[in-house]
Formats: sequence, structure tokens, C-alpha cells
Amino acid sequence: MTEAGQATPIYGRVALIGLGLIASSMARAMKANGLAGHVAGHAKTPTTREVALELGFCDTVHDTAADAVRDADLVVLAVPVGAMQAVAAEIAPQLKPGATLTDVGSVKQAVVDAVAPHVPQGVHFIPGHPIAGTEHSGPQSGFATLFENRWWLLTPLPDTPAEAITRLRALCEGMGANVDLMDPPHHDLVLAVTSHTPHLIAYTMVGVAEHLRRVSNSEVIKYSAGGFRDLTRIAASDPTMWRDVFLTNKDATLDILGRFTEELFALQRAIRMGDGQMLFDYFTRTRAIRRGIIEAGQDTAAPDFGRAKGSTA
Amino acid sequence: MTEAGQATPIYGRVALIGLGLIASSMARAMKANGLAGHVAGHAKTPTTREVALELGFCDTVHDTAADAVRDADLVVLAVPVGAMQAVAAEIAPQLKPGATLTDVGSVKQAVVDAVAPHVPQGVHFIPGHPIAGTEHSGPQSGFATLFENRWWLLTPLPDTPAEAITRLRALCEGMGANVDLMDPPHHDLVLAVTSHTPHLIAYTMVGVAEHLRRVSNSEVIKYSAGGFRDLTRIAASDPTMWRDVFLTNKDATLDILGRFTEELFALQRAIRMGDGQMLFDYFTRTRAIRRGIIEAGQDTAAPDFGRAKGSTA
Repeated sequence: MTEAGQATPIYGRVALIGLGLIASSMARAMKANGLAGHVAGHAKTPTTREVALELGFCDTVHDTAADAVRDADLVVLAVPVGAMQAVAAEIAPQLKPGATLTDVGSVKQAVVDAVAPHVPQGVHFIPGHPIAGTEHSGPQSGFATLFENRWWLLTPLPDTPAEAITRLRALCEGMGANVDLMDPPHHDLVLAVTSHTPHLIAYTMVGVAEHLRRVSNSEVIKYSAGGFRDLTRIAASDPTMWRDVFLTNKDATLDILGRFTEELFALQRAIRMGDGQMLFDYFTRTRAIRRGIIEAGQDTAAPDFGRAKGSTA
Repeated sequence: MTEAGQATPIYGRVALIGLGLIASSMARAMKANGLAGHVAGHAKTPTTREVALELGFCDTVHDTAADAVRDADLVVLAVPVGAMQAVAAEIAPQLKPGATLTDVGSVKQAVVDAVAPHVPQGVHFIPGHPIAGTEHSGPQSGFATLFENRWWLLTPLPDTPAEAITRLRALCEGMGANVDLMDPPHHDLVLAVTSHTPHLIAYTMVGVAEHLRRVSNSEVIKYSAGGFRDLTRIAASDPTMWRDVFLTNKDATLDILGRFTEELFALQRAIRMGDGQMLFDYFTRTRAIRRGIIEAGQDTAAPDFGRAKGSTA
């Protein structure tokens, strides 16, 4: 990485459509690393545009998406998956020949289906997905290091020039991310396992706790350090984004959910039958995956995630 | 809290039976806050005793539990729930009249059933459960601040003198914990919701990911930042401890699991039917619980838990 302003920008003008957690982090990361000459932004909601203006992570904030993308070398669609089609249709006539269009949606095949038909000849559409985030939403939640040491998946279509992919890849890497390429359906299956289904079961468990009459919400909250709070973080993510994820990655999510239920029933049966050996063996195997995640740098082994003040092992 | 050695110890001699994460954290916290005159320890495994001796968090380490508890004012059973009965039977003849016996098991009714019959007249058995922990096990994993701002539940039996409860409570508070009293069955239901069922679904999801042939383990590990890693932390906890939790809190866990499955099927159906409004409403409600946990100081709202190096909002 380079110091601010030191490098030659990878794109002269970048337009961000949608100014939430991901786009505002991209703007900050591009500025911090001198990756873009000019960052133009647009958000549908006037308050979001005002906050973005105040925070100053964009050079210009525009009232319409069509205005924001004019003359941009890179356009980033950072809106919920369900809104991609309308935005693509709106901006398509303004896209500059030779420009690259990407997105940051959590589902890829549905975005390809929604966006690709609108992309004019000579514009390179390279769908993408940064696997990074927090449970917070909105322009004030972004930070420049969000993508550091996280994976950014690109799912280019077959006819995309290698040059355009290399350039977008350089931008992602410039923000600190690692880049992998895969095809859209495989992306959607991988994410159904590593993200979509985990979010659904976390939402479900939090919902169960909320509905239970014999245990008060205040008890659930007070005693959450026993495991529950780990689920609540991901169950606090943006509702609109997650609604769209499940509506647009339906098949893969239902497939993985089916496997999850089968597996849960097997463990439930072991509990009912008192099969301690089965439980012990199962719980032993799952530790290896956790070790792999820490070795791969995707989490920390620090006690309690540094949640306990001043914790030292 | 007071500085090391400054306070009058709350108990003259404390014996810890089992020297894993919880007991070794207790030893460190008692030393750091001058809460015990002498800390005696015992672990079944010789290597654990050796590590404990090297780390020096106990004043003395004993080869047998019976030897460790001799003359102790407080005895803490910090072994898996399934091992409580045998340990109680072994130490019972050595317990000093007027001593307090407590435990740190994650299930309370089963511990009462296993231990109470062995407790001699004149010894005060006060079951307990500190809701604190990390995914790490063993004597090297403990740290003095583990209990700070965490809840320590005591589930005293009806005939326990108030004085004995007050003294144990002072010890827990001296280690930084907040103390609540409740009866054992309610404890087991609350923990089934806030800890046991969340752990089981986390184990299950990690198991599903491990078995899936079309997505490699290395993909699961690399792309885990999308939500999966939050589940793997709790699915890496001690297998013996968790086997015993599910075997001994069977009824409450199966009750909550049943509700979880019902709820999951309702969400699964909404996905299948494309009912976006139902999903959106559900995901919106669960955010409130998360806010409550942060307000109650049981988690942090820091972006990404401080996992992203140098993250600032």
C-alpha cells in the first residue's frame, strides 16, 4: 500500500451508486491510498446524501445516479440486490464507452441477470463481492480499513477483456483486499454456506429468544455472553440487504438449509438418545475448521475477541 | 476492586478442583484482587497439574482432589458436569464443617442432583455458573479479567444460610462479576436459550460446511468473514464440556430446539414463497435485541469487534 495521494490513481473518476457501509468504506479506502482521481457519489435518500457531504468522503455528491456516473471510468453499484435492475436501467445511457461497471452485491447470478441486459456495448461489466462488513449500516459506518486482508470475489462474464479485470483487481488490492475469481453460480453456493445460511439461523435464534414468554428479553440480554451474543451481531445486519439476499439466492440457500436441518435432526436425536460419543466426536471435528480460519487470518484467537477490557492470555 | 494483596481475603483457603479456563481465571482473579489467602488446585491430568505449577496461578497443586480440599473454606468444582458426581463423592469426607462448596457448571439442576446427596451436614453447597468464557480450553487459557462485567448466576438450595451466600457473592463481585440468584430449573431454561441452543446450531452449521463436497473446506475458511466465522468461534469450545451440557440439560434444550425448528421452517417457507415483507419485518425486529445487548455492556459495537486492524468508524 502507498501513502495518500502518492500513487497514480488506478481510475481517474469513480462513481459510487449507493453510499452505505461498503461504498463509504470504498471511498475512504480509495482516498487513503490514492487510488481514484475523483470520487463521485449518489444515494437515493436525501439524508444519506447530506451525511455523505458532511463527512466528505466523496469529492462530489449528486442528486441522480445518471448524473453521478457521467464520465466515470469506474461505476460501482452499491445498492441492495433488489434495486440493481432499476439503477442499471437508469444509468446505462450515461455510461462512458470503455468504462468498467461493477457491483458489491452479496449474490452474483441474480445481479448478472438484472444488470447485464442493460450494459451497453463497450462497457465492461465485472460483478464483484467484497466479503467484508460489520453489523452497522449507512454512510457513517464506513472506515478505510474495512477490506484489509478480506477477500473480494470477482465473477467476470466470459467475454470480458483481461485488461479490465486486471485493473479492477488492482483497485481491490489497493484497498487491502485479496482477490479471487469464480463463476457466479459457484459464488452463490459458497456464500450460501459461509454467509447466507449462517445469517438465517442467527436471525431465527434471535427470533426464538424474543418470542419466548418464560424467559424475559432482559434475561436474554443480560446472560448473552454464553454464546447468544455471537449470533446477535450477524442478526443485526441491514434488513433490506438480507431480504434481497434470500429472495435472490433462494435455491442455494434452501439447499444448504435442507442439509442444515438434516444435520440438526441427527444431533437432536443424539441428545434425545443420550449418545454422548456422537456429540463428542461431532464437536471435536468442528474445532479444526475454526483453527483453519484463524490460521488463514480471517479471525483472531485473542481471548473473547478483545471484548473483555484489558484481557491478556 | 482493590489492588493486589490490599484487601482482607474473603476466604482463607480456596480449593479449585479442575484447572481449566474457568478455574485458572478464578485463581488469577483472586490473586489479582487479594480475595483468597491460599489457592490450592487439583487436576486429574498430570500434564495439566504440571502446566499449572509452571504458570504458578495456584499456591499449591495436589495430586488428588481429596488432598486439595483439606481444610479449605471454599471448594470450587470446575470439572465437566458429567464428572461432578464422582468428584463430589471423593471429596465429601474431607470437607471442613462450615465450608462452602460451589461449582461452575453450565447446567444447574443436574449438578444439584449429582452433588447434593454427597454434601455432609454443615457444609453449604451453593451451585453457581459464571457466564463468561472463550473458545479456548486449559490452564494456559485463563486470564484475570475474564469475569469483569459478566454475570455470575448462583442457584442456592432453600436451606442455605444467607451469610454463606453473601460471602460467595462477595467473592464473585470481587472478581468483577455481577451476581444474580435464581432457581436451578429456570437457570437451565435461560441458558438453553442464551447458550446451549446457540452452541448446538453453531456446531451444526460448521458441520454442514465441513461435509459439503461442492464447496471445499479451504473456500469455507477463506470466505468465512461473511458471517460463518461468528459461528465457528462458539463451535470451537471444549467438546467434553458441551457433550455434558446437552446430555444433562436435555429437556430444556430439546424444547428450545423444537421452537427453533418451527421458526426456521416459517422463514424457510417465506424464502420459498418469495415473501419479502415477512423477511424484512423479521430481520428488523431482531436488531432491537442486539441493541439491548450492547446497551447492557455485554458486547461492543466497535466495527468488526476490533478484528480489522486499526479499524476506526
